[in-house]
Amino acid sequence: MKKYIQDDVMLQTKAAKRLYDDYAAILPIIDYRTHLSVEEIAGDEPYRNLTQLMLKNASEKWRLMRANGVEEKYITGDAPDREKFQKFAETLPKAIGNPIYLNTYIELKSFFGCEEILSGQTAEKIWNDVNGKRKDLSPRKILAKEKVESLGILVDPSEELQRFEQLHQDKTCLTDILPVFCPDKALRIEDEEWENYMKYELGTAAGIEISTMHDVYEALSARMDAFGAIGCCTADHTLAAISYYPAENFELDDIVGRTINGKGSPSEKAREQYQTAVLLFLAKEYARRGWIMQLEYAVVRDSNTRRAQQLGPDKGDDCLSSGCRGDNLAKFFDRLNREDKIPKTIISSRNPADGAMIASVIGVFQGSGVPGKLQLGGSWTFQGDKEGIKAQLANTANFLLLGNAIHMPSNARSLLALNRHEYYRRILCNFIGRIVENGEYPADWDALGKLIEDICYNNAKQYFAE
Amino acid sequence: MKKYIQDDVMLQTKAAKRLYDDYAAILPIIDYRTHLSVEEIAGDEPYRNLTQLMLKNASEKWRLMRANGVEEKYITGDAPDREKFQKFAETLPKAIGNPIYLNTYIELKSFFGCEEILSGQTAEKIWNDVNGKRKDLSPRKILAKEKVESLGILVDPSEELQRFEQLHQDKTCLTDILPVFCPDKALRIEDEEWENYMKYELGTAAGIEISTMHDVYEALSARMDAFGAIGCCTADHTLAAISYYPAENFELDDIVGRTINGKGSPSEKAREQYQTAVLLFLAKEYARRGWIMQLEYAVVRDSNTRRAQQLGPDKGDDCLSSGCRGDNLAKFFDRLNREDKIPKTIISSRNPADGAMIASVIGVFQGSGVPGKLQLGGSWTFQGDKEGIKAQLANTANFLLLGNAIHMPSNARSLLALNRHEYYRRILCNFIGRIVENGEYPADWDALGKLIEDICYNNAKQYFAE
Amino acid sequence: MKKYIQDDVMLQTKAAKRLYDDYAAILPIIDYRTHLSVEEIAGDEPYRNLTQLMLKNASEKWRLMRANGVEEKYITGDAPDREKFQKFAETLPKAIGNPIYLNTYIELKSFFGCEEILSGQTAEKIWNDVNGKRKDLSPRKILAKEKVESLGILVDPSEELQRFEQLHQDKTCLTDILPVFCPDKALRIEDEEWENYMKYELGTAAGIEISTMHDVYEALSARMDAFGAIGCCTADHTLAAISYYPAENFELDDIVGRTINGKGSPSEKAREQYQTAVLLFLAKEYARRGWIMQLEYAVVRDSNTRRAQQLGPDKGDDCLSSGCRGDNLAKFFDRLNREDKIPKTIISSRNPADGAMIASVIGVFQGSGVPGKLQLGGSWTFQGDKEGIKAQLANTANFLLLGNAIHMPSNARSLLALNRHEYYRRILCNFIGRIVENGEYPADWDALGKLIEDICYNNAKQYFAE
Repeated sequence: MKKYIQDDVMLQTKAAKRLYDDYAAILPIIDYRTHLSVEEIAGDEPYRNLTQLMLKNASEKWRLMRANGVEEKYITGDAPDREKFQKFAETLPKAIGNPIYLNTYIELKSFFGCEEILSGQTAEKIWNDVNGKRKDLSPRKILAKEKVESLGILVDPSEELQRFEQLHQDKTCLTDILPVFCPDKALRIEDEEWENYMKYELGTAAGIEISTMHDVYEALSARMDAFGAIGCCTADHTLAAISYYPAENFELDDIVGRTINGKGSPSEKAREQYQTAVLLFLAKEYARRGWIMQLEYAVVRDSNTRRAQQLGPDKGDDCLSSGCRGDNLAKFFDRLNREDKIPKTIISSRNPADGAMIASVIGVFQGSGVPGKLQLGGSWTFQGDKEGIKAQLANTANFLLLGNAIHMPSNARSLLALNRHEYYRRILCNFIGRIVENGEYPADWDALGKLIEDICYNNAKQYFAE
Repeated sequence: MKKYIQDDVMLQTKAAKRLYDDYAAILPIIDYRTHLSVEEIAGDEPYRNLTQLMLKNASEKWRLMRANGVEEKYITGDAPDREKFQKFAETLPKAIGNPIYLNTYIELKSFFGCEEILSGQTAEKIWNDVNGKRKDLSPRKILAKEKVESLGILVDPSEELQRFEQLHQDKTCLTDILPVFCPDKALRIEDEEWENYMKYELGTAAGIEISTMHDVYEALSARMDAFGAIGCCTADHTLAAISYYPAENFELDDIVGRTINGKGSPSEKAREQYQTAVLLFLAKEYARRGWIMQLEYAVVRDSNTRRAQQLGPDKGDDCLSSGCRGDNLAKFFDRLNREDKIPKTIISSRNPADGAMIASVIGVFQGSGVPGKLQLGGSWTFQGDKEGIKAQLANTANFLLLGNAIHMPSNARSLLALNRHEYYRRILCNFIGRIVENGEYPADWDALGKLIEDICYNNAKQYFAE
Repeated sequence: MKKYIQDDVMLQTKAAKRLYDDYAAILPIIDYRTHLSVEEIAGDEPYRNLTQLMLKNASEKWRLMRANGVEEKYITGDAPDREKFQKFAETLPKAIGNPIYLNTYIELKSFFGCEEILSGQTAEKIWNDVNGKRKDLSPRKILAKEKVESLGILVDPSEELQRFEQLHQDKTCLTDILPVFCPDKALRIEDEEWENYMKYELGTAAGIEISTMHDVYEALSARMDAFGAIGCCTADHTLAAISYYPAENFELDDIVGRTINGKGSPSEKAREQYQTAVLLFLAKEYARRGWIMQLEYAVVRDSNTRRAQQLGPDKGDDCLSSGCRGDNLAKFFDRLNREDKIPKTIISSRNPADGAMIASVIGVFQGSGVPGKLQLGGSWTFQGDKEGIKAQLANTANFLLLGNAIHMPSNARSLLALNRHEYYRRILCNFIGRIVENGEYPADWDALGKLIEDICYNNAKQYFAE
C-alpha cells in the first residue's frame, strides 16, 4: 500500500515505468491547441498568489466547485482570492478519480516543491508556504519549466496579431508562440451577434464589405494570409455537429444577404447549408496552404444561458451533444476527396460514444505520402479524463496506427494546466506497457522507446512542420 | 485459484477489501427507487417457497430464462413452483459474468446459510434444505436483515395511500416506507389508455374534471399535496426520450382537449409539446416543494406487444432506445434555470452510450449551496450490471465529484433483490481501491473511509432529508 | 518481462491459460460468415508468395498501410509483390495494440514456423525463408490446418452454385463449404445498379420478370430454394440502418414499378418502405425454412467514392454510421413476433456504441424452446478488435447468457485471416479466466471447460444444425 502519491503514479507495470522514466518524461512539448492568453505571456508578470495561478480562467476547476455547491461569488465572483482558494481546497478531497485531483498535486510539487495534499485543513499552510515562492513564477518560467517548444493559441480571425509578432522577435521567449486560426464566430450564422461580427469585426479586419458568400470567403482568406504571414499553420473549429448539406451559390448568397441585412435569422436548413459551404471552403484553403485543420464537434457552447448573460461566454458551461449523424462526416470528407483536397485533419467528437465511428471514417480518407494524415483527436472536454485518453489510444490502435499518433494538445485555459501533458504521457506509457506485459508486442526497448518518442514528440514535430 | 465464491469476491486489492469490510459492509441502506409492493410489506406473510421468494415479479431473471429458451409456462405461466425453480436453476450456470449469478449465491448464503452453487443438479437439494428455513423469512425480516432504513416505492398518483399511512404508524415496521410519486401514465398522452386514465383515475383521485392543460396541472398538484402529506419527497419518470418542444397555452389546451374527448391520438409534435409542458410544470413544483426528481430515459416500455396483450405490462420486455437528442436535455434544464427552478434531480439514460453526455449537462446546472444537487444515475436496466456501475462511477469521477455520489437505488421488483446494494458496494470499493493502489489518491484511511461512508449512506441521507 | 511473443499471449491468469490450452485451442472451427472465394478453394492452387497469401483482398491490412501514408500502387496497384510486402512490413511496427500485429506473427509462426518479428528490417529474410515453404500451402491445407469444419461464404442470390455442389461431392475437401444467401443488392433500391441487377441478374437467375413487389418476393424465394437445395441455411444482410416503415402493397408495387422502369430513384421514404417490406418478407421465409438470419448494420459501404470509381467496391472503404434509431430494431422484431415468425437471428451493429441497446432488444424477443435464439453479434468491422470482442462478451454476459454464445465468425477476406478464431478464443478465455480469478464463478473446471467448449464449438454446431 502506498502512503503518498509517488513518482510512479499510474504506471502499473515495470514496462510502463521504464517507458515513462527513460523516454516520455524528458521530452519537450508541442502544444497545438490552448485557450491561453498571448497578453499574459507577453506581459510575463509573476502571479500574485495561488488563486491567480490555479483558478483564474480554470473553468474545469470551477465545474468541480459548482458540483460541490460552492456559491458563484467564490468561483467567478468578487470574493477574496484566499477564500476562493479555500473553497477549491475543500472541494478537492471529493474529487477522487478526477484528473484535477492528481494534477493539482503535480502542480504544487513540480512548481513549488510542495508535497502536501491539498484539502480544507491544509489550505492555509500551503497558501502561505507557496506565497513565498510564487514570485519566481511567471508565464514564461512555466513554459520553460514544462519544456514547451511551441504553443498554439486560439485566435479569432478578426483579432490583431502584433503580440505574436513581438513575441516572435523577443529572444527571451524560448517558446514558439503561434496563433491558431479559429473562425467559429464566422461559422455561427445562427447567433444573434453574427451580423455585427461579420460587418464590423471580420469585415473590418479584412478590409472587405461583406454582402455575399463570396465576400465571406474573401474575408476569411485575407485573414488566413495575415495569420500565415506570422507562422500560423493550424486552424480550429468547435461545432455542435458536422453538417453536410450542399447548396447552390445563389442559395448561399441569399442566406448570407438576408441574414447580414437583418432580415431574420436563418432556417435550420439554411444554417446547415451555410456551415457546409464555409467549412468546405476553409478545408480546401487549408489543403492548399498546407495548414492543419482541427475539428471538434458535439459541443454545445455556453449552455447555461442565464450565466452566459450574467458573466459572458466561456464560464465552464459547455456540454456534450449526442445523436450527431456520423454519415455526414464521411460525406464531408468524400466531397473534399473527390477534388483531392483533404487537408491534414484532427477530428474529435467530445462525445466519447463517437470514437470508433470517427476512427473508421478516418481510415477511409488517409492520404498517400503522409503517415497519419488524418488523426483521431480526444473526446475529453474539460480536463483530459483518463477514460477519454484510454479510449482515444485504443481506438487509434484498433482502427489506425498508434505509432503515428501526435500526442494530445492541452486545451489549457491556465498555464499550470500544461502539466496535463504529464498526465497523458503516464497514461500512454501505461497503455503501451500493458500491451508489452500482455505479450502482444515484443519487449524490444529500442522499438518501444522510438514509439514513445514518436508519439510524444517526433510525430507532432513533423506533422506541424511539413 | 479460488475454489468457491469467497467473502472477498470482486474485491481485487487489499485497499478494496479494507474499504468494504471496515466501512461499506456495515452501513444501513437508503433505497430511493423500487418496484416493490406496499401490500406485500404490510401483509408481512412468510414466503411459501423459493420460487415465491426469488422468481415472483423478478423480470430480470425471467429474461435469463427466456434467453435459455425456457417456455413461458415455466416463467409467468401456471407450471408448479418447483418446476419453475428447476428451470431457473438449469439456466443459471450459463449466466457466467451476469450479476444474477453472483447475487443468487449471495441470496442463498445470506438468508439461508446455503453455500451450495445453484444448478440443475443441486436444485432439488437446495429447494428442500431451504424449505425448512423459509418460514423465518417475511418481507419485514428481509428489510431488517438488509438494514434498510428507508424504502421508496413507485406509486401512481391516482392510487390510494392508506397502506403507507398504516405502515407509518406501525411501530413494528422499522423501515420508513415511502411512496415515490410516479406520473408516467399522465405523461403518456400517446397511449390509448390515457383518456380513461385522466378522466376516471387521476381526475377522480384528485376530484377534478380534466379538460384543459390547467386541469392536468391542478390534478397533479392535488395529488402531490396528498403524497407530500404522508412524507413523499421524491418523484420518478421513465421516458423514451427527453423532449424539449415549448408550446403556447392555447396549443396545449387544444392538445389536451382533443385527446381527452377522443378526437384522435395526438401527433408526434403534439405529444412532445405536451410532455415538455407537463415535465416543466412538474419540475418547478418539485423545486418549490423541495422534492427530488428522478428521470430515466431511453426506455421503450413493454416492447413485446404480443406478450403485453397476453400478460399485461411489466413482464420483462422493456428495451433501450438510442439516438435520443442530448441537446434537449440541456435545453430542458436551461429553461428551468432561467427561472432558478431546477429541483434536485437524478438523471439516467438506460443507454450507457449517453453517460458522458449526461454528466456534462449536469456539470452545467449544479446549484449553489447544495453539494451534488444534480446526480448522474445509473444506466443499468435490468439487474444493475457491473459495466454499467463502473461507467457511472467513472463518469461521476471524471465529470463531477465522486465524493458527492448518493449510492444506487436497487430498482428491485422482489425483496431479495435488495442485496444488489452489496453488489454495488463491492464494485464501488473495488473502484476506489484501484485508484488508491494506482497511486492516484493517498492511502489516508480516514479520508477514504469517510468517502465510502458518504457515498454509501451519508450523502443520500442528507440529499433526501433536506 | 517477456522478451518475445509467447504461447500464453493475452492469457493473463492461470485460469485463462488452463481454459485456453486444455479446451479452446484444440476445438474445430465453425465459421459461418466469410468473404472468401469458393473458386480459390475449388482450385486449391499453392500460393505464389507471401503477398498473395497475406495481402491479397486483405482490406483491413490495406487500411493500415494507407494510415501510414503508403501510396496506392503498393496496396491495390501494380507494384511488384515483394515491394508491397516491404511496405506492409514497414507499417507493422507502428501497429502496436492492433490485432493485425499479433495475428501476423501468429500467421508466420503457425504456417511457416517463423518466429521472427516482421518489420522493414526483417522483411527480406522472412520473404526468402518463407518462399521455400509456401509451396506446401494451398487453400485446403490452410482449412485443414485450422481445423475448419464448416465454412460459410457470402454469395449473391443471382450467382451460380455449381462450385459449391462440386466441392460438396469432392471427398478430398474435408471442410463443409456452404453459401450464405446475401441479398444486399436486392435490398439497395437506392443504388443506380438496382434496376439492371433486378432485371438482368436476379430476375434472370430466378427465371422471373420483375415488375411488382410480389415478383421481387418470388424471385428471392426461388433463389432461396436453389440455395437451400445445396445445404444453405444462413442469410446475411449488411445495412446502413435498420428501417421500420410499413407500407401498403399498392404503395410497394408503385415503388418497385417506378424504379425498375427507370422513372427516377426512390425517395428516402420509399427506400425505407421497400427495405422494411423486403426484410420482413425475408425474415418470415427464413423462419419458415429454419434458416439463420444475420443482420449487420451501421455500415456505410465504399464511402470513398473516388476510389470506388477507380477500383470498384470492397477496397477497404467501409465506415461506421451513427445515430441509428434503436427503436426501429424493436419494432421490426415486434412485427415479426406478432405472427410468431422470428427466425434465429444474429444482430450486430458495427458501431460499438449500440451494443447494450441491441442486447436489450434481443432479451425481449427470445424464443421458447431454442436456447439463445437471438444472438448479439460483434461490432468489429475490419479485423476483430480486442475492445469490440470484450464489449460483445460483456454485453452478452450482462444482458443475455454468455453460456449460449456461438463464437464469432471470422469475416475473413483471405484464408490466413481464419486465425482470428485463435485471437477470439484467447480473449474469451481471458475474459472468463478473470471472472473466475475475481471470485464471481467457482473454479469448477468441468463446468468451465464445458462453457468454453459450448461457446467455441457446441453451441454453433447446434444452432446451425437444427
